[in-house]
Amino acid sequence: MVETGGAPLRAAVVGTGLIGGSILLRLHRAGLPVSGWDPDPATRAEGRRQGLTFPDELADAVRDRDVVFLGAPLAALPEMLARIGAGTGADCVLTDVGSTKSAVAAAATAHGLAHRFVPGHPMAGAERAGLVSAVPDLFAGAAWVLCPTAETLPGPFRKLAALIVDVFGARIVPMSPTVHDSVVALASHVPHLLAGGLAGATAGSPVRDAVLGLAAGSFRDGTRVAGTPAKRTVDMLLSNRAEVLAQLAGVTAFLDGLTAALRSADGDRLLAYYRRAQALRASLPERRFTRSRRSFPLAGPLDEELRFLLELGAAGGHLTGCEVRDATVTYLVHRPDDDEPGGDGVAPLG
Amino acid sequence: MVETGGAPLRAAVVGTGLIGGSILLRLHRAGLPVSGWDPDPATRAEGRRQGLTFPDELADAVRDRDVVFLGAPLAALPEMLARIGAGTGADCVLTDVGSTKSAVAAAATAHGLAHRFVPGHPMAGAERAGLVSAVPDLFAGAAWVLCPTAETLPGPFRKLAALIVDVFGARIVPMSPTVHDSVVALASHVPHLLAGGLAGATAGSPVRDAVLGLAAGSFRDGTRVAGTPAKRTVDMLLSNRAEVLAQLAGVTAFLDGLTAALRSADGDRLLAYYRRAQALRASLPERRFTRSRRSFPLAGPLDEELRFLLELGAAGGHLTGCEVRDATVTYLVHRPDDDEPGGDGVAPLG
Repeated sequence: MVETGGAPLRAAVVGTGLIGGSILLRLHRAGLPVSGWDPDPATRAEGRRQGLTFPDELADAVRDRDVVFLGAPLAALPEMLARIGAGTGADCVLTDVGSTKSAVAAAATAHGLAHRFVPGHPMAGAERAGLVSAVPDLFAGAAWVLCPTAETLPGPFRKLAALIVDVFGARIVPMSPTVHDSVVALASHVPHLLAGGLAGATAGSPVRDAVLGLAAGSFRDGTRVAGTPAKRTVDMLLSNRAEVLAQLAGVTAFLDGLTAALRSADGDRLLAYYRRAQALRASLPERRFTRSRRSFPLAGPLDEELRFLLELGAAGGHLTGCEVRDATVTYLVHRPDDDEPGGDGVAPLG
Repeated sequence: MVETGGAPLRAAVVGTGLIGGSILLRLHRAGLPVSGWDPDPATRAEGRRQGLTFPDELADAVRDRDVVFLGAPLAALPEMLARIGAGTGADCVLTDVGSTKSAVAAAATAHGLAHRFVPGHPMAGAERAGLVSAVPDLFAGAAWVLCPTAETLPGPFRKLAALIVDVFGARIVPMSPTVHDSVVALASHVPHLLAGGLAGATAGSPVRDAVLGLAAGSFRDGTRVAGTPAKRTVDMLLSNRAEVLAQLAGVTAFLDGLTAALRSADGDRLLAYYRRAQALRASLPERRFTRSRRSFPLAGPLDEELRFLLELGAAGGHLTGCEVRDATVTYLVHRPDDDEPGGDGVAPLG
């Protein structure tokens, strides 16, 4: 049981779609007192129907809470942050679940909440929607980015990290907002663009019907996230525009190289490109991690702990434990083993 | 039991990797006399270890057979076709499983085998490899393209269609070689290019390690077929070069439109693009078919039957039955219901 000073942690979730709703269900199942709120009255009614606490007023949902998760859409985050900041106590930890982090971090600073807001991003379940699709085990084993700062590290970050590991079974990936936005541009947003391009082009193609008839694994996989609600995808892309365009340029350049090699029927060059791609893909399910423990004195200094955390996330590592005891914080660390990045295709291809 | 003139059909499979091996296992499980051959002695030994008939000489494997499946790699098909044509009787039906059809159809014509060669393409299981990965149920419910001609329709096509439906439980999609190659360029080969671009660009990215750490569904799905053995992907792309480049141009144009809208932060336009993409993706798992029976007199004329078959495949339909009885051939036909192609995004966007 997650506790704060002996009493169970009191939580709220504001915005209870698929992600927020799944957080709410998990907290409820864990036996924590948790209230939910959503701007949609039908969602609040659905929540009550499921036996959850869903007051009609936002202020009633977040009052006297130790932690509030913001599941609101990206565009609504800055305003919701201000409202929730005003309705919660000075010790209440705030976090969000949005798919980009720099903008919301800046909004928290602008609202004077930077000392208790920890930007967050659980990486799970983008293609369904709504509280009705929510499931409490959505985050088991999933990566959950948290962005620590020197200001939030001592209290809010550690409290939230412990909660997310203990209650959700997620892997904490510590990252700065700017590194996060650059990484998800390539890990998630560009894949959404490619899927949109493939599905959209097929919709207008003269061979559309026959393509649907023959669509096997590669087409189904390559278009799956095009099934995400369009508005959500568009908001996500717009919120990370510069980084998405920058990472897309890298993918387009590689694709142009592939295309040029295909056009000139250069089999050797195509093979070099595809060996590089194959090695990268092979390293995905086969990643091996070395586990270790790393402790820091609670009294600080904080810069070493912060540097350690941010370096771990950038290296592809994560945390599966965060324990505060005897004036020490101890992290359970998973650092990826060196997998000879890129294999035989690592030399520049031109 | 599939029979020919009362006796069970005798089959052979030449080239027993994942696809050929799975065909062999299924025929064997169905109780048909079937022999296998592979140029790799270790594969032949593995086949014998599994209790299958695997002579050392190709000629011994294909002699006195009613049907031979060619599972050889694309590059080896023309030569293998000539050898197998010479080693089999005038009534022996030949088919292949390659991922493009125009080149092998031309090779069959060049070798004087067009009257008994039916180009084929089962759409299943591209990312594994080898007889050790073969499973007999690989094709259950899968699309299996067959290319009929007026010449092969009366005997070889109908015999093969019945075998594939009855023994493999696959859906027969009748198509001409040129339509097939154009459709698979968009349904399979362009997805392989996009996956290669995403995986290859990530391999060389400075944020590679962090991307692997955060890789969620969209990245895993978007790179999955980049895990296909590189040589096989390259041979497939090269064998369908012109069509792949043509279909890629359409996808790139749509992607350029998406990118331009993102660059200019045009949310409305992005939304229109993504609604089109979402509608296409939504139509994939929700396809509904109307079943019917269609009969033709065995005595012909054949042009009406051929036109019917090719039109059905181009419309995204398929066959799940082919029965010859009382001087009539009867097909069990599945034709997709009209699903308002493209939804609200069907108007030209660009």
